[in-house]
Amino acid sequence: MHQIFGPGPIDVAASPFAVLQAQPAVLRDGFWRSRQQINAEVGLTHGYQMLEQFGNFHDLALAAGRIQGSYKGPLFIDSDLYKWLEAVAFELQRRPSTSISAMADHAIDLIVAAQAPDGYLNTYYQVVEPHNRWKQIHIGHELYCAGHLMQAAVAYFRATGSHRLLDVACRFADHITTVFGPGRLETCCGHPEIETALIELFRVTRRKAYVDLAAYFIDVRGKHTLVPEPFGSVHYQDQTPVRQAEAMVGHAVRQLYLCAGVTDLFLETGEAALLESQQRLWTDMTAGKMYLTGGVGPRHGTEAFGNYYELPTDTAYCETCAAIASIFWNFRMLLATADSRFADVMETTLYNGFLAGVSLRHDRYFYVNPMLSRGGIERPQWHGCACCPPNVMRLIASLHHYLCTTSRAGIQWHHYAAATVQTSFATLLLDTAYPWRGEITMTIAHTQNDPWELSLRIPAWCGRATLAINGQAMWLNMRDGYAIITRTWSPGDTVALTLTMLPQLMMGNPNIESVHHCAAITRGPLVYCVEQPDCEAQTPLLDVQIDASKPLEVHDRPDLLGGVTTIRAAGVLTDVTAWQSCLYKPLRQADILRSVNLVAIPYFAWANRGPGAMRIWIPLTERNP
Amino acid sequence: MHQIFGPGPIDVAASPFAVLQAQPAVLRDGFWRSRQQINAEVGLTHGYQMLEQFGNFHDLALAAGRIQGSYKGPLFIDSDLYKWLEAVAFELQRRPSTSISAMADHAIDLIVAAQAPDGYLNTYYQVVEPHNRWKQIHIGHELYCAGHLMQAAVAYFRATGSHRLLDVACRFADHITTVFGPGRLETCCGHPEIETALIELFRVTRRKAYVDLAAYFIDVRGKHTLVPEPFGSVHYQDQTPVRQAEAMVGHAVRQLYLCAGVTDLFLETGEAALLESQQRLWTDMTAGKMYLTGGVGPRHGTEAFGNYYELPTDTAYCETCAAIASIFWNFRMLLATADSRFADVMETTLYNGFLAGVSLRHDRYFYVNPMLSRGGIERPQWHGCACCPPNVMRLIASLHHYLCTTSRAGIQWHHYAAATVQTSFATLLLDTAYPWRGEITMTIAHTQNDPWELSLRIPAWCGRATLAINGQAMWLNMRDGYAIITRTWSPGDTVALTLTMLPQLMMGNPNIESVHHCAAITRGPLVYCVEQPDCEAQTPLLDVQIDASKPLEVHDRPDLLGGVTTIRAAGVLTDVTAWQSCLYKPLRQADILRSVNLVAIPYFAWANRGPGAMRIWIPLTERNP
Repeated sequence: MHQIFGPGPIDVAASPFAVLQAQPAVLRDGFWRSRQQINAEVGLTHGYQMLEQFGNFHDLALAAGRIQGSYKGPLFIDSDLYKWLEAVAFELQRRPSTSISAMADHAIDLIVAAQAPDGYLNTYYQVVEPHNRWKQIHIGHELYCAGHLMQAAVAYFRATGSHRLLDVACRFADHITTVFGPGRLETCCGHPEIETALIELFRVTRRKAYVDLAAYFIDVRGKHTLVPEPFGSVHYQDQTPVRQAEAMVGHAVRQLYLCAGVTDLFLETGEAALLESQQRLWTDMTAGKMYLTGGVGPRHGTEAFGNYYELPTDTAYCETCAAIASIFWNFRMLLATADSRFADVMETTLYNGFLAGVSLRHDRYFYVNPMLSRGGIERPQWHGCACCPPNVMRLIASLHHYLCTTSRAGIQWHHYAAATVQTSFATLLLDTAYPWRGEITMTIAHTQNDPWELSLRIPAWCGRATLAINGQAMWLNMRDGYAIITRTWSPGDTVALTLTMLPQLMMGNPNIESVHHCAAITRGPLVYCVEQPDCEAQTPLLDVQIDASKPLEVHDRPDLLGGVTTIRAAGVLTDVTAWQSCLYKPLRQADILRSVNLVAIPYFAWANRGPGAMRIWIPLTERNP
Repeated sequence: MHQIFGPGPIDVAASPFAVLQAQPAVLRDGFWRSRQQINAEVGLTHGYQMLEQFGNFHDLALAAGRIQGSYKGPLFIDSDLYKWLEAVAFELQRRPSTSISAMADHAIDLIVAAQAPDGYLNTYYQVVEPHNRWKQIHIGHELYCAGHLMQAAVAYFRATGSHRLLDVACRFADHITTVFGPGRLETCCGHPEIETALIELFRVTRRKAYVDLAAYFIDVRGKHTLVPEPFGSVHYQDQTPVRQAEAMVGHAVRQLYLCAGVTDLFLETGEAALLESQQRLWTDMTAGKMYLTGGVGPRHGTEAFGNYYELPTDTAYCETCAAIASIFWNFRMLLATADSRFADVMETTLYNGFLAGVSLRHDRYFYVNPMLSRGGIERPQWHGCACCPPNVMRLIASLHHYLCTTSRAGIQWHHYAAATVQTSFATLLLDTAYPWRGEITMTIAHTQNDPWELSLRIPAWCGRATLAINGQAMWLNMRDGYAIITRTWSPGDTVALTLTMLPQLMMGNPNIESVHHCAAITRGPLVYCVEQPDCEAQTPLLDVQIDASKPLEVHDRPDLLGGVTTIRAAGVLTDVTAWQSCLYKPLRQADILRSVNLVAIPYFAWANRGPGAMRIWIPLTERNP
């Protein structure tokens, strides 16, 4: 078991208005631990190679004056490297590695060298358009890149204790405080991100100027200080003051990063209007604008939230970064409220909308995550706009920070995984095969003598949960979605929680036209899909229907896709030959050709066996249910 | 009966490769005649007032140097005035009017005065950016506006015999020939339109340089001569050479205007590769990219064609101009091939996707035509980008030109309306209450003594048609979708065609996710919808289902919406209270609250009684059909 040097992605130990405090755990084995391993062994090195290939190091060397040549990539390219470096820092915190340290050192050397004497740091504006520094705030991404630098610096400091990158970030942050604010440049970034980063930098440095600047950037939003061209104020999150916001709108990642920053500001200031605005927005998102997978932002082109119920399956955009941003925001809301609803959305998004963004080998990444593919879709190795891959890396590398929290009352377990958590008053070991099994066992390794409260989240998907302490069945004492056990614990005490994990057929709100009279298979936190490789020969996936009157069968398949549990359903293959080149014709019942077995796999595992068709939502047979 | 001065929107009398020749008719009464009347009495005057209010005359006066001030409106604003003037010309041809003539004279005076000495004419580039003349071809719309000027000039010349506007158009066209072409400016317009206009100008003037220039503009397309920013080559129709095109892509109006121009070029040159490309594109559009209403171009933002089966109902864009452009193109394809498939798409689009674009009073216009409204949608009086309203006006005012054609063999009737057509060898009177009734009676008023062929289109929607000549039933002799009668006619002969017009429930291709397990009501050429004002109190339209096992009832309602035939269907109201703020939940059958009567009205008549909800596609009850 490795030493955790410091708090994780959010250090709210000192945040006066956090109800819960983030509490890093150590993953021992199981689902997420194996993902962290492959992220370290394959993902981070792949990321380094891609950054090399796409010009990230080259651009830093240009800015540092070490080489001459042409700038490569888009103007926000620095942020990709910073996110990768943040992932590297979390991995070094989790498990020191000389080869990963060497990659980090190379990057940090270049960053230090590239920083301008006044603290400014942005390779694009240093190399290509020095005369336009801070002049294209709505599209320039300078503060956005600065935010990612700060987050990487905080993570690297917490992982290693080294001040080297933190000093770069603070010099840049200090420079930014001289440029922006009342009486200076009175505006904010066209892409939110620096707000949450500045508050995290404050949590490490305790320099109040940083949280003040974050507050300024949040307050100035919605006052139309940004040029609205070419995409409009809504795109840049400049259409409405934050405290008056009623709806999730515009570019999904921008909206959600802003929400994370606003919630962070609430955690520091306790201003009720901030939290209330976030509760309104969360209700708006979850009541009408979220996919079954937790994915958000249906619109291509603008990468934006749509109208209520605008949730098409095949043209779903659902950027991987938007899923990640939603997880960041929901975790902060959880810390602010201790309400399991936020952990439920985190979980759905983690296992589905987020995790589909990376291949099982962690060397290929989706930017767009549709609910239906007619074939031809595969994850690329990298992207011209490469925001998603290193964003996946940093979330995977830091996942052990999101599992549980502490409060004055005790320990709260939100996401189940085989892990150990060590707090000031107790050490707890958790064993489980989640998400494949609903059985969870906790053992108290050490504990103080005074009583404390153990809170266990009962996920919203779970219809029936049972609890036993030292083998004796217990009444579930529920509060805000958690089973609460308060007692004087003894070393060796065991808690057995069983979440009944049956496969289910889900339906969508009748207003979601894309899923009308369709069903989706889920089990526990996992959304399932059917994919062409599991279909019998001669069974075109797009022409099958599911028979909801027949039972769903669960099968463990250690041989398949790195080991998954599949679900078998009964279906029929319909005859669509009459539809060849025909869009509309008089109504009649579909001709059924034959019965078929449908084998559903977890959605996150799709597109690992070639570009075959895939669908989450399967039309119901006519006479169902 | 008024004199038709000259041929209509397409004069293919001299087009060597037209199988059919456009043959103007005179509408006597009925559905379209009443629309032409109100277009003349309300629409054109409303248009004049709006052009005045939005700055069209002001900008011309600026360009003419008659006034000083600021330019108003977008850079393509001239085209709105030209389209309105074209409508005015068609109306003057249909029925002379001193008040309408006076409006036309005012506009033409200003146009003549605004034209530059070298023939150039574009108020935006004359007034605002004279240094950028012809320098922003991809977004400047100069050739697009020129094309609409030419079409207005041709129509005005044909209507009145006056050369005044035609001379302006020819001077401008002559100037353009000195600017564009091999060795000169080698590119085309970012918005196709001038191609079809130049060929029409050629048909009036017989100046071969015009058709050569149109051919040049068509040949240069797809060679990447246009700046692709900011919307990409596909948007500007510059991604693929015309003869290699395989799919309808990009901005729908641009794609369809280009198709009209390419088909016009085929009609003049007979080049097989041109017609073949258009047949491929037409198949692509109708097999996967067209709404039941004939509407096309689903995507907001880019106003573009989507993927196959990307046909959402609520976010359907379906610009009114795209429907009009599709009608223009399909008519040209009909002339080139004599194949009724093109007339079928024309008819569907005319009565539905197009006609919904204008209010019953002709004083309000839709730009966007969705298939489902959750409420809140009404036609505005005019638009900041006002392409659609005057486009509606010119199509309505010229509709009598699209009903029938002639060939060496005889007369072809494509669209049924009470009308008279007078050709060189016969005069024919047609009586019908179409589209409300399928009974059509033709009387031969005059005829030559030699036999000739009467071709009557049997629409694709019609399952059973019967024919009688002078009261005697006849066998239907079909060819390419037409019933053909060849005989020696005598004055007083009557032909009775009966198209059985039953209400039908239609279904969509299973790949169209938005209409899965839904039905749409149609009758004859009309697509129906249900609209909130016809629902019983306390029946939210979005929560009803249709019971396909019950019969559909037809009711004539002269009192409703200017006189329509409604269709009554049996439905149920489902209980959706459990869906409040809920997006997904375990599958179960919908709770039925009670039976309801559904009253469907023609889609074209929706949104004339306030902004209530509307839907074309209605979910089927669970146990259907």
